[in-house]
Amino acid sequence: MISKNQIKYIQSLHSKKNREQEKLFIIEGIKLVTEFILDGSYTIKDLFATQDYIDNHIDLLKSKTVNCTEISLEDLKKISLQTTPNQVLAIVTTKDHELNSDWLQQGLTLYLDDIRDPGNLGTMIRIADWFGIKQVICSENTTEVYNPKTLQASMGAVLRVNVIYKSFNNVLSIAKNLPIYGALLEGKNIYTTQLQKGIIVIGNEANGITPEVQKQITNAITIPAATNNGSESLNAANACAIICGEFFRQLNY
Amino acid sequence: MISKNQIKYIQSLHSKKNREQEKLFIIEGIKLVTEFILDGSYTIKDLFATQDYIDNHIDLLKSKTVNCTEISLEDLKKISLQTTPNQVLAIVTTKDHELNSDWLQQGLTLYLDDIRDPGNLGTMIRIADWFGIKQVICSENTTEVYNPKTLQASMGAVLRVNVIYKSFNNVLSIAKNLPIYGALLEGKNIYTTQLQKGIIVIGNEANGITPEVQKQITNAITIPAATNNGSESLNAANACAIICGEFFRQLNY
Repeated sequence: MISKNQIKYIQSLHSKKNREQEKLFIIEGIKLVTEFILDGSYTIKDLFATQDYIDNHIDLLKSKTVNCTEISLEDLKKISLQTTPNQVLAIVTTKDHELNSDWLQQGLTLYLDDIRDPGNLGTMIRIADWFGIKQVICSENTTEVYNPKTLQASMGAVLRVNVIYKSFNNVLSIAKNLPIYGALLEGKNIYTTQLQKGIIVIGNEANGITPEVQKQITNAITIPAATNNGSESLNAANACAIICGEFFRQLNY
Repeated sequence: MISKNQIKYIQSLHSKKNREQEKLFIIEGIKLVTEFILDGSYTIKDLFATQDYIDNHIDLLKSKTVNCTEISLEDLKKISLQTTPNQVLAIVTTKDHELNSDWLQQGLTLYLDDIRDPGNLGTMIRIADWFGIKQVICSENTTEVYNPKTLQASMGAVLRVNVIYKSFNNVLSIAKNLPIYGALLEGKNIYTTQLQKGIIVIGNEANGITPEVQKQITNAITIPAATNNGSESLNAANACAIICGEFFRQLNY
Protein backbone atom coordinates (compact mmCIF):
# COMPACT_ATOMS: atom_id res chain seq x y z
CA MET A 1 0.00 0.00 0.00
CA ILE A 2 1.10 3.49 -0.76
CA SER A 3 0.71 6.06 2.03
CA LYS A 4 -0.84 9.51 1.71
CA ASN A 5 2.54 11.04 2.37
CA GLN A 6 4.13 9.01 -0.39
CA ILE A 7 1.42 10.14 -2.82
CA LYS A 8 2.07 13.75 -1.85
CA TYR A 9 5.80 13.30 -2.21
CA ILE A 10 5.53 11.74 -5.68
CA GLN A 11 3.13 14.45 -6.79
CA SER A 12 5.75 16.99 -5.74
CA LEU A 13 8.08 15.37 -8.29
CA HIS A 14 5.70 16.45 -11.05
CA SER A 15 7.47 19.80 -10.85
CA LYS A 16 10.92 20.37 -12.29
CA LYS A 17 12.08 22.33 -9.25
CA ASN A 18 11.42 19.42 -6.92
CA ARG A 19 12.90 16.86 -9.29
CA GLU A 20 16.12 18.85 -9.37
CA GLN A 21 16.18 19.34 -5.63
CA GLU A 22 15.52 15.69 -4.85
CA LYS A 23 17.65 14.41 -7.75
CA LEU A 24 14.82 12.09 -8.72
CA PHE A 25 12.59 11.64 -11.74
CA ILE A 26 9.50 9.70 -12.73
CA ILE A 27 9.09 7.14 -15.50
CA GLU A 28 5.85 5.43 -16.42
CA GLY A 29 4.38 2.64 -18.46
CA ILE A 30 5.15 -1.05 -18.89
CA LYS A 31 7.65 -0.68 -21.73
CA LEU A 32 9.76 2.17 -20.39
CA VAL A 33 9.86 1.01 -16.78
CA THR A 34 10.67 -2.59 -17.70
CA GLU A 35 13.50 -1.36 -19.92
CA PHE A 36 14.94 0.68 -17.03
CA ILE A 37 14.74 -2.30 -14.66
CA LEU A 38 16.39 -4.65 -17.16
CA ASP A 39 19.09 -2.16 -18.05
CA GLY A 40 20.07 -1.54 -14.44
CA SER A 41 22.24 1.50 -15.08
CA TYR A 42 19.91 3.83 -13.17
CA THR A 43 19.00 3.31 -9.52
CA ILE A 44 15.28 2.74 -9.11
CA LYS A 45 14.35 4.12 -5.70
CA ASP A 46 10.72 3.00 -5.71
CA LEU A 47 8.47 1.08 -8.01
CA PHE A 48 4.69 1.26 -7.83
CA ALA A 49 2.95 -1.42 -9.82
CA THR A 50 -0.53 -2.83 -10.19
CA GLN A 51 -1.21 -6.50 -9.48
CA ASP A 52 -1.26 -7.11 -13.26
CA TYR A 53 2.23 -5.74 -13.73
CA ILE A 54 3.59 -7.71 -10.78
CA ASP A 55 2.00 -10.96 -12.00
CA ASN A 56 3.48 -10.54 -15.44
CA HIS A 57 6.97 -9.53 -14.27
CA ILE A 58 7.40 -11.63 -11.16
CA ASP A 59 10.73 -13.16 -12.24
CA LEU A 60 12.17 -9.82 -13.29
CA LEU A 61 11.16 -8.18 -10.03
CA LYS A 62 12.71 -11.00 -7.99
CA SER A 63 15.92 -11.09 -9.97
CA LYS A 64 16.55 -7.37 -9.70
CA THR A 65 15.53 -6.86 -6.05
CA VAL A 66 13.55 -3.75 -6.86
CA ASN A 67 11.70 -2.04 -4.02
CA CYS A 68 8.23 -2.72 -5.39
CA THR A 69 4.94 -1.61 -3.84
CA GLU A 70 1.64 -2.89 -5.13
CA ILE A 71 -0.75 -0.08 -5.97
CA SER A 72 -4.40 0.18 -6.97
CA LEU A 73 -5.25 1.74 -10.32
CA GLU A 74 -7.00 4.48 -8.38
CA ASP A 75 -3.85 5.40 -6.46
CA LEU A 76 -1.73 5.05 -9.59
CA LYS A 77 -3.89 7.71 -11.19
CA LYS A 78 -3.11 10.02 -8.30
CA ILE A 79 0.65 9.81 -8.74
CA SER A 80 0.69 9.52 -12.53
CA LEU A 81 1.19 12.34 -15.02
CA GLN A 82 -0.61 10.43 -17.75
CA THR A 83 -4.30 10.57 -18.52
CA THR A 84 -4.36 6.78 -18.83
CA PRO A 85 -1.67 5.37 -16.51
CA ASN A 86 -0.23 2.09 -17.72
CA GLN A 87 0.24 -0.31 -14.76
CA VAL A 88 3.55 0.95 -13.40
CA LEU A 89 5.45 4.04 -12.26
CA ALA A 90 9.00 4.26 -10.99
CA ILE A 91 10.95 6.88 -9.06
CA VAL A 92 14.50 6.92 -10.35
CA THR A 93 17.67 8.67 -9.22
CA THR A 94 19.08 11.18 -11.72
CA LYS A 95 22.60 10.87 -13.08
CA ASP A 96 25.04 13.65 -13.74
CA HIS A 97 26.89 12.58 -16.85
CA GLU A 98 30.32 14.06 -17.46
CA LEU A 99 31.27 15.18 -20.91
CA ASN A 100 33.47 12.50 -22.46
CA SER A 101 36.18 14.39 -24.32
CA ASP A 102 37.37 11.31 -26.24
CA TRP A 103 33.89 10.78 -27.66
CA LEU A 104 33.75 14.48 -28.44
CA GLN A 105 37.10 14.49 -30.23
CA GLN A 106 36.65 11.23 -32.10
CA GLY A 107 32.94 10.83 -32.62
CA LEU A 108 29.87 12.65 -33.75
CA THR A 109 28.13 14.84 -31.14
CA LEU A 110 24.79 16.61 -31.16
CA TYR A 111 24.61 20.06 -29.59
CA LEU A 112 21.02 21.15 -28.89
CA ASP A 113 20.80 24.91 -28.73
CA ASP A 114 17.77 25.95 -26.67
CA ILE A 115 15.35 23.18 -27.62
CA ARG A 116 12.14 24.07 -25.77
CA ASP A 117 9.73 21.23 -26.45
CA PRO A 118 10.23 18.15 -24.23
CA GLY A 119 8.85 15.86 -26.94
CA ASN A 120 11.37 17.23 -29.44
CA LEU A 121 14.23 16.75 -26.98
CA GLY A 122 13.20 13.15 -26.34
CA THR A 123 12.80 12.37 -30.00
CA MET A 124 16.25 13.82 -30.78
CA ILE A 125 17.86 11.65 -28.10
CA ARG A 126 16.10 8.71 -29.79
CA ILE A 127 17.57 9.77 -33.15
CA ALA A 128 21.05 10.02 -31.59
CA ASP A 129 20.60 6.53 -30.16
CA TRP A 130 19.53 5.13 -33.52
CA PHE A 131 22.57 6.50 -35.32
CA GLY A 132 25.07 5.60 -32.60
CA ILE A 133 25.73 9.12 -31.31
CA LYS A 134 26.86 8.54 -27.75
CA GLN A 135 26.46 11.97 -26.27
CA VAL A 136 24.01 14.80 -26.70
CA ILE A 137 25.05 18.13 -25.24
CA CYS A 138 22.29 20.59 -24.40
CA SER A 139 22.59 24.33 -23.91
CA GLU A 140 21.59 25.43 -20.45
CA ASN A 141 18.30 26.82 -21.80
CA THR A 142 17.33 23.51 -23.37
CA THR A 143 14.37 21.84 -21.71
CA GLU A 144 14.93 19.25 -18.97
CA VAL A 145 15.92 15.71 -19.94
CA TYR A 146 14.04 14.37 -16.89
CA ASN A 147 10.75 15.93 -17.93
CA PRO A 148 8.31 12.99 -18.20
CA LYS A 149 7.40 13.96 -21.77
CA THR A 150 11.06 13.91 -22.78
CA LEU A 151 11.57 10.48 -21.25
CA GLN A 152 8.42 9.17 -22.91
CA ALA A 153 9.44 10.46 -26.34
CA SER A 154 13.00 9.14 -25.93
CA MET A 155 11.63 5.58 -25.62
CA GLY A 156 14.45 4.50 -23.35
CA ALA A 157 17.20 6.09 -25.44
CA VAL A 158 18.40 7.98 -22.32
CA LEU A 159 19.70 4.60 -21.14
CA ARG A 160 22.19 4.53 -23.99
CA VAL A 161 22.90 8.18 -24.79
CA ASN A 162 24.57 10.50 -22.29
CA VAL A 163 22.76 13.82 -22.08
CA ILE A 164 24.87 16.65 -20.69
CA TYR A 165 24.08 20.35 -20.10
CA LYS A 166 26.91 22.71 -20.99
CA SER A 167 27.35 26.12 -22.58
CA PHE A 168 28.73 26.06 -26.08
CA ASN A 169 31.85 27.94 -24.99
CA ASN A 170 32.45 25.24 -22.45
CA VAL A 171 32.23 22.60 -25.18
CA LEU A 172 34.50 24.62 -27.47
CA SER A 173 37.20 24.82 -24.83
CA ILE A 174 37.39 20.99 -24.99
CA ALA A 175 36.67 20.49 -28.70
CA LYS A 176 39.85 21.53 -30.43
CA ASN A 177 39.66 22.20 -34.17
CA LEU A 178 36.55 20.13 -34.64
CA PRO A 179 34.21 21.05 -37.47
CA ILE A 180 31.05 22.68 -36.08
CA TYR A 181 28.07 22.01 -38.35
CA GLY A 182 24.92 24.08 -38.15
CA ALA A 183 21.87 24.23 -40.39
CA LEU A 184 21.67 27.76 -41.76
CA LEU A 185 19.73 29.02 -44.77
CA GLU A 186 22.89 30.00 -46.64
CA GLY A 187 24.63 26.71 -45.81
CA LYS A 188 25.98 24.13 -48.22
CA ASN A 189 23.70 21.34 -49.44
CA ILE A 190 24.26 18.44 -46.99
CA TYR A 191 23.73 15.90 -49.75
CA THR A 192 26.61 17.15 -51.90
CA THR A 193 29.03 18.32 -49.18
CA GLN A 194 31.52 15.91 -47.75
CA LEU A 195 30.67 15.59 -44.07
CA GLN A 196 33.15 14.61 -41.34
CA LYS A 197 32.86 13.76 -37.69
CA GLY A 198 32.39 16.77 -35.43
CA ILE A 199 29.62 18.64 -33.67
CA ILE A 200 26.16 19.08 -35.20
CA VAL A 201 24.25 22.05 -33.77
CA ILE A 202 20.44 21.93 -33.84
CA GLY A 203 18.71 25.24 -33.12
CA ASN A 204 15.57 26.28 -31.29
CA GLU A 205 12.21 25.36 -32.85
CA ALA A 206 11.15 28.96 -33.52
CA ASN A 207 14.37 30.97 -33.60
CA GLY A 208 17.02 28.58 -34.89
CA ILE A 209 20.60 28.67 -33.65
CA THR A 210 21.40 31.47 -31.16
CA PRO A 211 23.64 34.28 -32.50
CA GLU A 212 26.49 33.41 -30.10
CA VAL A 213 26.60 29.82 -31.30
CA GLN A 214 26.11 30.83 -34.96
CA LYS A 215 29.40 32.71 -34.78
CA GLN A 216 31.18 29.47 -33.97
CA ILE A 217 29.74 27.45 -36.88
CA THR A 218 32.62 26.46 -39.16
CA ASN A 219 30.51 24.44 -41.64
CA ALA A 220 27.10 25.89 -42.45
CA ILE A 221 24.89 23.24 -44.00
CA THR A 222 21.36 23.16 -45.30
CA ILE A 223 18.76 20.54 -46.20
CA PRO A 224 17.76 21.41 -49.76
CA ALA A 225 14.05 21.84 -50.47
CA ALA A 226 12.22 21.26 -53.71
CA THR A 227 12.36 24.65 -55.42
CA ASN A 228 9.69 27.34 -55.22
CA ASN A 229 7.31 25.39 -53.10
CA GLY A 230 6.84 28.07 -50.49
CA SER A 231 7.63 25.81 -47.55
CA GLU A 232 9.68 27.58 -44.96
CA SER A 233 11.19 25.02 -42.70
CA LEU A 234 11.15 21.55 -41.29
CA ASN A 235 10.30 20.76 -37.68
CA ALA A 236 13.53 20.80 -35.60
CA ALA A 237 13.37 17.07 -34.79
CA ASN A 238 12.75 16.13 -38.42
CA ALA A 239 15.65 18.30 -39.54
CA CYS A 240 17.79 16.60 -36.89
CA ALA A 241 16.71 13.18 -38.21
CA ILE A 242 17.61 14.03 -41.80
CA ILE A 243 20.96 15.59 -40.86
CA CYS A 244 22.00 12.70 -38.59
CA GLY A 245 20.87 10.21 -41.24
CA GLU A 246 23.02 11.91 -43.88
CA PHE A 247 26.08 11.98 -41.58
CA PHE A 248 25.53 8.29 -40.91
CA ARG A 249 25.21 7.53 -44.61
CA GLN A 250 28.36 9.42 -45.60
CA LEU A 251 30.51 8.21 -42.72
CA ASN A 252 29.49 4.56 -43.05
CA TYR A 253 28.99 3.86 -46.74
CA MET B 1 -19.02 41.75 -32.22
CA ILE B 2 -19.47 38.03 -32.11
CA SER B 3 -22.88 36.76 -31.02
CA LYS B 4 -23.53 34.05 -28.44
CA ASN B 5 -24.91 31.84 -31.16
CA GLN B 6 -21.79 32.28 -33.25
CA ILE B 7 -19.62 31.34 -30.25
CA LYS B 8 -21.69 28.22 -29.75
CA TYR B 9 -21.51 27.33 -33.42
CA ILE B 10 -17.73 27.73 -33.56
CA GLN B 11 -17.33 25.68 -30.40
CA SER B 12 -19.32 22.93 -32.11
CA LEU B 13 -16.58 22.85 -34.76
CA HIS B 14 -14.12 21.74 -32.09
CA SER B 15 -15.48 18.25 -32.73
CA LYS B 16 -14.56 16.20 -35.77
CA LYS B 17 -18.14 15.06 -36.34
CA ASN B 18 -19.40 18.62 -36.69
CA ARG B 19 -16.48 19.70 -38.84
CA GLU B 20 -17.26 16.89 -41.26
CA GLN B 21 -20.97 17.63 -41.26
CA GLU B 22 -20.52 21.37 -41.82
CA LYS B 23 -17.53 20.91 -44.17
CA LEU B 24 -15.68 23.56 -42.20
CA PHE B 25 -12.51 23.69 -40.16
CA ILE B 26 -10.72 26.07 -37.81
CA ILE B 27 -7.29 27.59 -38.17
CA GLU B 28 -5.62 29.84 -35.63
CA GLY B 29 -2.70 32.14 -35.06
CA ILE B 30 -1.21 35.08 -36.94
CA LYS B 31 1.14 33.09 -39.14
CA LEU B 32 -1.16 30.28 -40.26
CA VAL B 33 -4.24 32.43 -40.81
CA THR B 34 -2.30 35.13 -42.70
CA GLU B 35 -0.81 32.44 -44.93
CA PHE B 36 -4.29 31.08 -45.72
CA ILE B 37 -5.60 34.58 -46.54
CA LEU B 38 -2.63 35.38 -48.78
CA ASP B 39 -2.77 32.02 -50.53
CA GLY B 40 -6.44 32.32 -51.37
CA SER B 41 -6.95 28.72 -52.44
CA TYR B 42 -9.31 27.95 -49.54
CA THR B 43 -12.53 29.87 -48.92
CA ILE B 44 -12.44 31.66 -45.58
CA LYS B 45 -16.02 31.79 -44.36
CA ASP B 46 -15.39 33.93 -41.28
CA LEU B 47 -12.44 35.61 -39.69
CA PHE B 48 -12.38 36.67 -36.05
CA ALA B 49 -9.51 38.98 -35.21
CA THR B 50 -8.46 41.21 -32.34
CA GLN B 51 -7.94 44.94 -32.88
CA ASP B 52 -4.18 44.28 -32.93
CA TYR B 53 -4.41 41.82 -35.80
CA ILE B 54 -6.71 44.11 -37.79
CA ASP B 55 -4.42 47.12 -37.28
CA ASN B 56 -1.40 45.19 -38.46
CA HIS B 57 -3.10 43.58 -41.48
CA ILE B 58 -5.43 46.33 -42.63
CA ASP B 59 -4.21 46.33 -46.26
CA LEU B 60 -4.36 42.57 -46.54
CA LEU B 61 -7.88 42.44 -45.15
CA LYS B 62 -9.05 45.15 -47.56
CA SER B 63 -7.42 43.59 -50.59
CA LYS B 64 -8.90 40.17 -50.02
CA THR B 65 -12.44 41.17 -49.00
CA VAL B 66 -12.45 38.74 -46.09
CA ASN B 67 -15.51 38.67 -43.86
CA CYS B 68 -13.72 39.92 -40.73
CA THR B 69 -15.27 40.43 -37.31
CA GLU B 70 -13.41 42.20 -34.54
CA ILE B 71 -13.29 40.16 -31.38
CA SER B 72 -12.13 40.72 -27.80
CA LEU B 73 -9.39 38.53 -26.41
CA GLU B 74 -11.94 37.26 -23.94
CA ASP B 75 -14.29 36.06 -26.69
CA LEU B 76 -11.38 34.72 -28.72
CA LYS B 77 -10.51 32.50 -25.78
CA LYS B 78 -14.04 31.11 -25.86
CA ILE B 79 -13.84 29.97 -29.48
CA SER B 80 -10.16 29.00 -29.51
CA LEU B 81 -8.71 25.54 -29.04
CA GLN B 82 -5.38 26.91 -27.87
CA THR B 83 -4.42 27.70 -24.30
CA THR B 84 -2.96 31.03 -25.43
CA PRO B 85 -4.91 32.18 -28.50
CA ASN B 86 -2.88 34.30 -30.88
CA GLN B 87 -4.98 37.25 -32.16
CA VAL B 88 -6.91 35.53 -34.93
CA LEU B 89 -9.08 32.53 -35.78
CA ALA B 90 -10.65 31.64 -39.10
CA ILE B 91 -13.43 29.31 -40.18
CA VAL B 92 -12.50 27.75 -43.49
CA THR B 93 -14.37 25.57 -45.98
CA THR B 94 -12.88 22.10 -46.45
CA LYS B 95 -11.78 20.82 -49.85
CA ASP B 96 -12.21 17.36 -51.25
CA HIS B 97 -9.08 16.73 -53.25
CA GLU B 98 -9.22 14.18 -56.02
CA LEU B 99 -6.37 11.77 -56.48
CA ASN B 100 -4.23 13.00 -59.37
CA SER B 101 -3.25 9.89 -61.30
CA ASP B 102 -0.57 11.66 -63.36
CA TRP B 103 1.19 12.75 -60.19
CA LEU B 104 0.80 9.24 -58.84
CA GLN B 105 2.24 7.63 -61.98
CA GLN B 106 5.06 10.09 -62.53
CA GLY B 107 5.95 11.46 -59.12
CA LEU B 108 6.68 10.41 -55.59
CA THR B 109 3.68 9.81 -53.33
CA LEU B 110 3.40 9.25 -49.58
CA TYR B 111 0.85 6.72 -48.36
CA LEU B 112 0.14 7.08 -44.64
CA ASP B 113 -1.17 3.81 -43.25
CA ASP B 114 -3.22 4.49 -40.11
CA ILE B 115 -1.27 7.41 -38.66
CA ARG B 116 -3.03 8.20 -35.41
CA ASP B 117 -1.33 11.28 -33.99
CA PRO B 118 -2.53 14.58 -35.52
CA GLY B 119 0.86 16.20 -34.85
CA ASN B 120 2.60 13.39 -36.74
CA LEU B 121 0.21 13.72 -39.67
CA GLY B 122 0.80 17.48 -39.86
CA THR B 123 4.54 17.12 -39.63
CA MET B 124 4.56 14.50 -42.41
CA ILE B 125 2.56 16.81 -44.70
CA ARG B 126 5.21 19.46 -43.92
CA ILE B 127 7.95 16.98 -44.90
CA ALA B 128 6.14 16.17 -48.16
CA ASP B 129 5.89 19.89 -48.88
CA TRP B 130 9.59 20.40 -48.21
CA PHE B 131 10.63 17.68 -50.60
CA GLY B 132 8.15 18.58 -53.33
CA ILE B 133 5.79 15.62 -52.87
CA LYS B 134 2.50 16.93 -54.23
CA GLN B 135 0.07 14.44 -52.79
CA VAL B 136 -0.21 12.53 -49.56
CA ILE B 137 -2.70 9.70 -49.53
CA CYS B 138 -4.04 8.61 -46.15
CA SER B 139 -5.68 5.32 -45.26
CA GLU B 140 -9.23 5.75 -44.07
CA ASN B 141 -8.14 5.11 -40.47
CA THR B 142 -5.54 7.86 -40.55
CA THR B 143 -6.38 10.80 -38.32
CA GLU B 144 -8.20 13.83 -39.76
CA VAL B 145 -6.26 16.38 -41.79
CA TYR B 146 -8.59 19.13 -40.52
CA ASN B 147 -7.83 18.41 -36.87
CA PRO B 148 -6.49 21.73 -35.50
CA LYS B 149 -3.33 20.00 -34.23
CA THR B 150 -2.64 18.58 -37.70
CA LEU B 151 -3.07 21.99 -39.30
CA GLN B 152 -0.85 23.61 -36.69
CA ALA B 153 1.92 21.05 -37.16
CA SER B 154 1.68 21.25 -40.95
CA MET B 155 2.57 24.97 -40.80
CA GLY B 156 0.55 25.79 -43.88
CA ALA B 157 1.82 22.84 -45.91
CA VAL B 158 -1.81 21.77 -46.55
CA LEU B 159 -2.00 24.77 -48.88
CA ARG B 160 0.54 23.16 -51.19
CA VAL B 161 0.11 19.42 -50.67
CA ASN B 162 -3.11 17.61 -51.58
CA VAL B 163 -4.19 15.26 -48.82
CA ILE B 164 -6.54 12.52 -49.95
CA TYR B 165 -8.19 9.64 -48.05
CA LYS B 166 -8.30 6.35 -49.96
CA SER B 167 -7.88 2.68 -49.24
CA PHE B 168 -4.65 1.15 -50.47
CA ASN B 169 -6.51 -1.13 -52.86
CA ASN B 170 -8.12 1.90 -54.38
CA VAL B 171 -4.70 3.46 -54.92
CA LEU B 172 -3.31 0.22 -56.34
CA SER B 173 -6.07 0.06 -58.94
CA ILE B 174 -4.74 3.36 -60.33
CA ALA B 175 -1.02 2.86 -59.69
CA LYS B 176 0.05 0.40 -62.33
CA ASN B 177 3.39 -1.33 -61.84
CA LEU B 178 4.71 1.34 -59.52
CA PRO B 179 7.29 0.33 -56.92
CA ILE B 180 5.71 0.31 -53.46
CA TYR B 181 8.28 1.12 -50.78
CA GLY B 182 7.70 0.30 -47.14
CA ALA B 183 10.00 0.41 -44.14
CA LEU B 184 10.23 -3.13 -42.80
CA LEU B 185 12.84 -4.62 -40.48
CA GLU B 186 14.09 -7.06 -43.11
CA GLY B 187 14.18 -4.38 -45.82
CA LYS B 188 17.16 -3.26 -47.87
CA ASN B 189 19.34 -0.44 -46.57
CA ILE B 190 17.87 2.75 -48.09
CA TYR B 191 21.33 4.31 -48.30
CA THR B 192 22.74 1.62 -50.57
CA THR B 193 19.63 0.69 -52.57
CA GLN B 194 18.83 2.52 -55.75
CA LEU B 195 15.50 4.24 -55.15
CA GLN B 196 13.03 5.22 -57.87
CA LYS B 197 9.84 7.22 -57.98
CA GLY B 198 6.82 5.41 -56.63
CA ILE B 199 4.78 5.13 -53.46
CA ILE B 200 6.35 5.33 -49.99
CA VAL B 201 4.23 3.72 -47.28
CA ILE B 202 4.63 4.99 -43.69
CA GLY B 203 3.06 2.79 -41.03
CA ASN B 204 1.23 3.40 -37.79
CA GLU B 205 3.26 4.77 -34.84
CA ALA B 206 2.83 1.67 -32.69
CA ASN B 207 2.05 -1.15 -35.09
CA GLY B 208 3.82 -0.24 -38.32
CA ILE B 209 2.34 -1.06 -41.70
CA THR B 210 -0.95 -3.01 -41.65
CA PRO B 211 -0.73 -6.65 -42.82
CA GLU B 212 -2.94 -6.01 -45.87
CA VAL B 213 -0.69 -3.21 -47.10
CA GLN B 214 2.49 -5.11 -46.20
CA LYS B 215 1.51 -7.77 -48.73
CA GLN B 216 1.60 -5.16 -51.48
CA ILE B 217 5.08 -3.83 -50.67
CA THR B 218 7.34 -4.54 -53.65
CA ASN B 219 10.47 -2.87 -52.24
CA ALA B 220 11.04 -3.36 -48.53
CA ILE B 221 13.51 -0.78 -47.23
CA THR B 222 15.03 -0.04 -43.87
CA ILE B 223 16.89 2.83 -42.22
CA PRO B 224 20.06 1.22 -40.89
CA ALA B 225 20.87 1.77 -37.22
CA ALA B 226 24.27 1.83 -35.58
CA THR B 227 24.83 -1.79 -34.58
CA ASN B 228 24.02 -3.30 -31.20
CA ASN B 229 22.79 -0.15 -29.59
CA GLY B 230 19.52 -1.57 -28.39
CA SER B 231 17.36 1.12 -29.96
CA GLU B 232 14.20 -0.26 -31.40
CA SER B 233 12.74 2.28 -33.71
CA LEU B 234 12.49 5.84 -34.82
CA ASN B 235 9.38 7.95 -34.37
CA ALA B 236 7.17 7.58 -37.49
CA ALA B 237 7.56 11.23 -38.52
CA ASN B 238 11.34 11.10 -38.14
CA ALA B 239 11.52 7.90 -40.16
CA CYS B 240 9.37 9.59 -42.82
CA ALA B 241 11.76 12.59 -42.84
CA ILE B 242 14.83 10.41 -43.32
CA ILE B 243 13.21 8.27 -46.03
CA CYS B 244 11.87 11.25 -47.99
CA GLY B 245 15.24 12.99 -47.65
CA GLU B 246 17.06 9.98 -49.07
CA PHE B 247 14.62 9.69 -52.01
CA PHE B 248 15.16 13.39 -52.69
CA ARG B 249 18.93 12.99 -52.53
CA GLN B 250 19.04 10.00 -54.87
CA LEU B 251 16.52 11.34 -57.37
CA ASN B 252 18.04 14.82 -57.57
CA TYR B 253 21.79 14.44 -57.24
